Amino acid sequence: MNTIQTCYSPALFPLFKEENAIVVVVDVLRATSAICTAIHHGVDKMIPVAGLDEARKYKAEGYLVAAERNAIKQDGFDFGNSPYHYIDEDLSGKTIVISTTNGTQAIEAAKDSSTILIGSFLNISAIANWILQQERNVIVLCAGWKNKFNLEDSIFAGALGLKLIQSGKFNTVCDSTIAAGYLYERANNDLYGFLEYSSHRNRLKDLQLENDIRYCLTEDQMETIPVYMDGGLVHMSKFEVVNP
Amino acid sequence: MNTIQTCYSPALFPLFKEENAIVVVVDVLRATSAICTAIHHGVDKMIPVAGLDEARKYKAEGYLVAAERNAIKQDGFDFGNSPYHYIDEDLSGKTIVISTTNGTQAIEAAKDSSTILIGSFLNISAIANWILQQERNVIVLCAGWKNKFNLEDSIFAGALGLKLIQSGKFNTVCDSTIAAGYLYERANNDLYGFLEYSSHRNRLKDLQLENDIRYCLTEDQMETIPVYMDGGLVHMSKFEVVNP
Repeated sequence: MNTIQTCYSPALFPLFKEENAIVVVVDVLRATSAICTAIHHGVDKMIPVAGLDEARKYKAEGYLVAAERNAIKQDGFDFGNSPYHYIDEDLSGKTIVISTTNGTQAIEAAKDSSTILIGSFLNISAIANWILQQERNVIVLCAGWKNKFNLEDSIFAGALGLKLIQSGKFNTVCDSTIAAGYLYERANNDLYGFLEYSSHRNRLKDLQLENDIRYCLTEDQMETIPVYMDGGLVHMSKFEVVNP
Repeated sequence: MNTIQTCYSPALFPLFKEENAIVVVVDVLRATSAICTAIHHGVDKMIPVAGLDEARKYKAEGYLVAAERNAIKQDGFDFGNSPYHYIDEDLSGKTIVISTTNGTQAIEAAKDSSTILIGSFLNISAIANWILQQERNVIVLCAGWKNKFNLEDSIFAGALGLKLIQSGKFNTVCDSTIAAGYLYERANNDLYGFLEYSSHRNRLKDLQLENDIRYCLTEDQMETIPVYMDGGLVHMSKFEVVNP
């Protein structure tokens, strides 16, 4: 039997670290949904960087760079945080540097972990199915909002937790995972409606990003799992060549 | 309109600090339930100390000292963390030093706040009613378990949040408060049953503290509100003499 834990804030991740655990980083609205979409549509590698200064250095070196803060694409960069940026253009084979308010900070917090997967509702079943073949413990790291709990990442953690526990191969003694499961059960019939009053949906609503939100909340759009390797996020098929 | 926020971990409290907000510290199982019970039964003052070394110094000076770690009363001290310690003995007029795994750490984290109330299900309506007379913002600080989220403190936060929001005088844009409200609604019919799988209830179950748990989950047993003043926790009536 393996265990699943949920960490609601990157700032608390040091309390959860566990050797050999698989860490699933999630920032549903919208960083990890965008990363999944980009890798799924053929982007070769995404390099997550926490700071805008570092992002600017990459930009000066000629890289394509995505940079978002507080839901807004930053001036002078190529992309923001919308998954649609990676659907609408042909970016196959490209490397893209990415820096976001929460998602890339969460990846940074997790980066010493042995395996880091990038999760979203878009690939949630693919993530669950891959994990179920590994016989390793799991920690879901919610990016949250500036180190505070948020609803959308928590319901993802709940959904993934329920899938793993219902397989009979996982259990949990982690209150965050239990709570996240209850929240997902409550949200389940209408994720979009459930987030009506959530803080980040309201931030995005002001920016009229309803289409982005609906897309990010649609389960199982892809089998693609981005995974952290050598400082970048790549398709699982590349990772498995090196880590069979 | 005032706002309510919920902080799930003392380690995250610096993200929530707000000048002039009322902070409600809660550690349902069992520190704040014990403190409410002690003050209600006539204890004059409880001095919260974070460390056991400090608790030992007080003990050496002749103070009555309660000290608990990982749900167990520590050797050489007078009390542990059970509310019944303060019902069964005549402690009226006494000062008691208290150090616990989570509750006193949470009070320590909050101690620069202008008003700190000690909350529990035992006095939840009294707390809500007092707050509704103040026209100030509120932050519920959950003690959690070693800086991790726990279920019992969160459902208290949800219950208090719902009371304040349903008054029409409070709103929230805090996802933790919204989530806590959902969890309380789920738990509401049977708090004891809801916590069946919670991590701390299971720790206490191993120690056969079912009576303590049932007591701590019983709403509205008292009007007493302990409040932090001059390094100690005292009855609200003493606080209001100085802060009318």
